[in-house]
Amino acid sequence: MNVITISREFGSGGRELGKRLADILDIAYYDKEIISAIAGKSGLDERYVANISEKGICTYPLTFGRTLSLYTDVQDNNMKILVTQQQILKELADKGDCVIVGRCADVILREYNPFNLFIYASMSSKIRRCRERASADEKFTDHEMEKRIKRIDKERAKYSELFLDVKWGAKEGYHLCINTSDIEIEKLTPFVAEYAKNWFKRNE
Amino acid sequence: MNVITISREFGSGGRELGKRLADILDIAYYDKEIISAIAGKSGLDERYVANISEKGICTYPLTFGRTLSLYTDVQDNNMKILVTQQQILKELADKGDCVIVGRCADVILREYNPFNLFIYASMSSKIRRCRERASADEKFTDHEMEKRIKRIDKERAKYSELFLDVKWGAKEGYHLCINTSDIEIEKLTPFVAEYAKNWFKRNE
Repeated sequence: MNVITISREFGSGGRELGKRLADILDIAYYDKEIISAIAGKSGLDERYVANISEKGICTYPLTFGRTLSLYTDVQDNNMKILVTQQQILKELADKGDCVIVGRCADVILREYNPFNLFIYASMSSKIRRCRERASADEKFTDHEMEKRIKRIDKERAKYSELFLDVKWGAKEGYHLCINTSDIEIEKLTPFVAEYAKNWFKRNE
Repeated sequence: MNVITISREFGSGGRELGKRLADILDIAYYDKEIISAIAGKSGLDERYVANISEKGICTYPLTFGRTLSLYTDVQDNNMKILVTQQQILKELADKGDCVIVGRCADVILREYNPFNLFIYASMSSKIRRCRERASADEKFTDHEMEKRIKRIDKERAKYSELFLDVKWGAKEGYHLCINTSDIEIEKLTPFVAEYAKNWFKRNE
């Protein structure tokens, strides 16, 4: 199976690149679908799963039905989510060629020999991208936006530390690192698609 | 002018990529030519210039004719080489589109808005590449080869600290970082060429 994984800084356009890449290559794209699959499999609340899925920490109250869980349950459930996520990532990869965004798929699916991309950008460019896709009622200042971007990336890095022997975002862990500052993702995608195709050909 | 700069780990195939890229794009390629130009302009020994040019440190005895120079002269001449190098890089960039390998051209030519590549690879892949291009009488063990690779990269990083506000090799300083582990540079080059063309189009 040809698996492309996309790790990305918040606001770098990595998700958009992933979607477009899957479109161009005509292969499956998995991102939030993973959350629903984990929720379905584990019986846990989807919002809760979303929080754990890329953070590995609990910031959303965990409930089964209407019962707020105890701390030990939370720990158990976090573990459950991580384990379920690993199973699901492998199930998805087994289904066929795909693009998977985030969730340490680059490491979890190492045995599939995936093509691992890291997408990053300058802070000003990330703030601009976040503004473009924000809803009209979102009223963050640049400073608040920057804090938010840094917080989310810190969580992603922390989560990845569970699996990784190299630092999240350190180029050594990826096959190609793309700086998307001031770049239109749409224009970028065909080149990445060609690069990926060539990369897989090499491994055939 | 469209300037492509290539920073690279020793043994990553960055120089080969640079040459091939210049060939495909039909633009000038500058690497060792820079050394000769500096030597010519400064009147200094070419081997000495080569040592300073990317290291910023003196490991080769400096002579004018047959007179071994004093330490203060060495310092002055190192400065002279660095300044001359900066002038020459700008002169080359003014001449027309080009690929420049090493020498912190990415930073020195910042005003030209260059397309900055960083080429890297796993240690095993770098050792393999070094072996392939080594002369028959070179008898390094893997361990010695690794030490050599690390030493050269350390010198490059040290030199770049003179100019850079970010760490040498930190992806933030580059537009594209390519992991060449187990990749044939020849096959890789057309994609990088297309990427670069597209990148410059964006800036027109």
